[in-house]
Amino acid sequence: MHIRNAWYVAAMSNEVADKPLGRTICNHNLVLYRGKGDKIAAIEDFCPHRGAAMSLGYVEDGELVCGYHGLRMGPDGNTLSMPKQRTDRFPCTKSFPVEEKYGFIWVWPGDKAVAAETPVPTFHWAESDDWAYGGGHYHIKCDYRLMIDNLMDLTHETYVHSTSIGQKEIDETPVKTRMEGDQVITERYMSDIKAPPFWQMAMGFQGLDKDADVDRWQICRFNTPSHIMIDVGVALAGNGGFEAPAEKRAGSVVVDFITPETDENMHYFWGMARNFQAQDAELTDKIREGQGGIFAEDLEVLEAQQRNLSRYPDRDLLKLDIDAGGVQARRLIDRAIKAEQESA
Amino acid sequence: MHIRNAWYVAAMSNEVADKPLGRTICNHNLVLYRGKGDKIAAIEDFCPHRGAAMSLGYVEDGELVCGYHGLRMGPDGNTLSMPKQRTDRFPCTKSFPVEEKYGFIWVWPGDKAVAAETPVPTFHWAESDDWAYGGGHYHIKCDYRLMIDNLMDLTHETYVHSTSIGQKEIDETPVKTRMEGDQVITERYMSDIKAPPFWQMAMGFQGLDKDADVDRWQICRFNTPSHIMIDVGVALAGNGGFEAPAEKRAGSVVVDFITPETDENMHYFWGMARNFQAQDAELTDKIREGQGGIFAEDLEVLEAQQRNLSRYPDRDLLKLDIDAGGVQARRLIDRAIKAEQESA
Amino acid sequence: MHIRNAWYVAAMSNEVADKPLGRTICNHNLVLYRGKGDKIAAIEDFCPHRGAAMSLGYVEDGELVCGYHGLRMGPDGNTLSMPKQRTDRFPCTKSFPVEEKYGFIWVWPGDKAVAAETPVPTFHWAESDDWAYGGGHYHIKCDYRLMIDNLMDLTHETYVHSTSIGQKEIDETPVKTRMEGDQVITERYMSDIKAPPFWQMAMGFQGLDKDADVDRWQICRFNTPSHIMIDVGVALAGNGGFEAPAEKRAGSVVVDFITPETDENMHYFWGMARNFQAQDAELTDKIREGQGGIFAEDLEVLEAQQRNLSRYPDRDLLKLDIDAGGVQARRLIDRAIKAEQESA
Repeated sequence: MHIRNAWYVAAMSNEVADKPLGRTICNHNLVLYRGKGDKIAAIEDFCPHRGAAMSLGYVEDGELVCGYHGLRMGPDGNTLSMPKQRTDRFPCTKSFPVEEKYGFIWVWPGDKAVAAETPVPTFHWAESDDWAYGGGHYHIKCDYRLMIDNLMDLTHETYVHSTSIGQKEIDETPVKTRMEGDQVITERYMSDIKAPPFWQMAMGFQGLDKDADVDRWQICRFNTPSHIMIDVGVALAGNGGFEAPAEKRAGSVVVDFITPETDENMHYFWGMARNFQAQDAELTDKIREGQGGIFAEDLEVLEAQQRNLSRYPDRDLLKLDIDAGGVQARRLIDRAIKAEQESA
Repeated sequence: MHIRNAWYVAAMSNEVADKPLGRTICNHNLVLYRGKGDKIAAIEDFCPHRGAAMSLGYVEDGELVCGYHGLRMGPDGNTLSMPKQRTDRFPCTKSFPVEEKYGFIWVWPGDKAVAAETPVPTFHWAESDDWAYGGGHYHIKCDYRLMIDNLMDLTHETYVHSTSIGQKEIDETPVKTRMEGDQVITERYMSDIKAPPFWQMAMGFQGLDKDADVDRWQICRFNTPSHIMIDVGVALAGNGGFEAPAEKRAGSVVVDFITPETDENMHYFWGMARNFQAQDAELTDKIREGQGGIFAEDLEVLEAQQRNLSRYPDRDLLKLDIDAGGVQARRLIDRAIKAEQESA
Repeated sequence: MHIRNAWYVAAMSNEVADKPLGRTICNHNLVLYRGKGDKIAAIEDFCPHRGAAMSLGYVEDGELVCGYHGLRMGPDGNTLSMPKQRTDRFPCTKSFPVEEKYGFIWVWPGDKAVAAETPVPTFHWAESDDWAYGGGHYHIKCDYRLMIDNLMDLTHETYVHSTSIGQKEIDETPVKTRMEGDQVITERYMSDIKAPPFWQMAMGFQGLDKDADVDRWQICRFNTPSHIMIDVGVALAGNGGFEAPAEKRAGSVVVDFITPETDENMHYFWGMARNFQAQDAELTDKIREGQGGIFAEDLEVLEAQQRNLSRYPDRDLLKLDIDAGGVQARRLIDRAIKAEQESA
């Protein structure tokens, strides 16, 4: 169950270069490729001739060519030509609204008319040269909503990520969940603590004393269909925390684009945006590598959780205060799905 | 869906040596082995004692011995003996008509009475010392009829095999499909072209100028249940093409025995028979290796096509002129299956 | 189909050290761990908070800690605590009777009240320092009853284990099956034969002439739910066989604990107990290694047999005299299952 009328991240821009990419998004098997002028296109991955996978073909002169018998397709799913064939009555393959923005390829699995009126969401960190971004892609065998739960309750850092960003004080500090417009926010503020290893590293990069007492913040912001941006960071204690001046803090935005692949599996596009040393590409790589290792720790946990839930689909889970972020996020999703169904 | 009353290639002769071979053919799990006088036998792979797989056993004194408790079986599926047991009332295991011919083991999944009246098909290239043969076996996760389509429309060579036997002129030359007796023939003749890499190699072996203009032919011949023999080759341009004298041509027969394993999977016995330098075993190996590489390129395409068709079983595919060979071949198969069902 | 009210071996003691162990027993997904005082506990592997797998967590201060959000559980399945949460109304997770004895962890999948009245079975070889034990664990994709059949009919040694413990005389010597109390016994006595390789090795360790004529015995003892102890060995010929004095024999007990994992798969805890050179740990390792290799030969046979039986579930198998042990054992199991169902 997922929202149909929404922009989902389907790929990172650099995943689609010369060759077409086959990828399943929201139960649709797609081929993504760059057509004329490198403009991205998203079509069902099914050749109307004999059902071959177009993603095994290639792009020539901006046209997607089937690798089986040479049918050529345009970005709207219409056959452009096929050797020695009249193609004007060939059935049109389903195409999907697609945009490229911020280094991601965004696909809209629902109604085209609604897509045309709906811009891809904007993110401040992606629009300024003061910020740098690095990230990656994981494929996880679980319902995408388990990842939403995961990210809206960072208590798990203490346990799953105990050697990097976890620390006991997370557990000991209550969270607050609230709605702000159409955004679910779960926030936690820790005062006068020591920074955990990952943040000590970041403080080092900032020229701050790693061993100093800090105030730490985690502000998780969920928007439909399933994006979570998390303000995280530390500031030297007593300087206002999240509001501290730049030279006394090390902070960033954890970027999480969560996209259903099928009803059972998901794509996770994770990353980190930072507004310090933004020009340092080496640092971007180093952080990406560290974050990639940390976020991989969630995979085993989530996949085992999914197996348990699939085996016992009728069990009631607990909904504690720390779960409020996930609960609220699911409520927004359910409401949007219901609205789509009623209008259909 | 496949014809029951027909000889299918179940294995290459050299796959069944000292040890029994377990193999599934047309949904039957078989054990193939060499009994007395090395005569091949085909029995259901199921020991009547406790259901062990006879193919995990061994052959001794021409008897198939179960590797679990020593039951010994004859080629008709009757138990011959078992240590310290009276076996005369043991149930008989199903046996299948089986022949060894041309270096292949042929199995008949249908009625024994019909098999007794039906000889294994003959092939001219297999009956003369002027010809050499080399080939191999692939296991492919697709309906066997997708391979028939594949081989009856060689347009795909331009795309799937672009670096070896494909060339643009295949696309540009129309094919003609016709019936000749109970054989479907799809043929294509290209004139005054350059030979593609594989045929340049063959011309070299023949002492011909690789860069000369040639006439090229592809004559695909389908017979039920699912064998396709393809005359292929090139001749120096203007010498009659397929009919050119031996010293001006390089040609061969692409041999394709296509055998359903189950309803979802198939065995592909591919090879090439040639009537030049037939005594050169090293050349046979070299060609086999080249052909094995080329034909492996089809696997990924066919398996992805199958996944697409399994997902959308109700979609109509196009039936273009280039598809006529496959369409006609399937028509012969359907007609034979219907006749079998009516007579049953 | 298996007996619910019985002690099954769930693990070897050394499989559960510092970390919890996830294991499925009789269709129950369990986490096994050592709590306070290293006392073993067995709980369903499902965190009541969000369904995470407790087996991915850790043990701290004798408490099982969920590795996702830090819920702490006691051996009865009750939540002890969770950071900043009141947990007194959390649902109790199902716990299972569990005992540690003889180097094994025994789990009772049925009624707790019956477990409380039923001691874990005793084994003479496990209670004396005169005996040494070594063994291992295999996971096999077959119904556990196929392993019972396997072990109650050692005729298969001639075929499956022809290079170690098999020999032709096993086949040629009839077996006798009888009940002794609630134990099924199948026995075979061979006289004046040569020892097979494994027993020649054992005779060497005992200082006996490997090439001497021996009397050999195999006495298989089955008890519900699915344990089989097999007295095996050889003695210099004419000295009473199984009853021969210690200095003229080499014997041991093959230990087989057979535990259903699910209805389709099983755990096999195999080993050997011997009362010669019991202090020689190196010999224990050597025998374990040899036995591990021999018993691995059964896996392929049993898994192929299972595939055959799953494909043809309605086929009648033969029940010969050599199968009587398995037949009787299954009868005891069926009777116990029926009694459980009637009392339920």
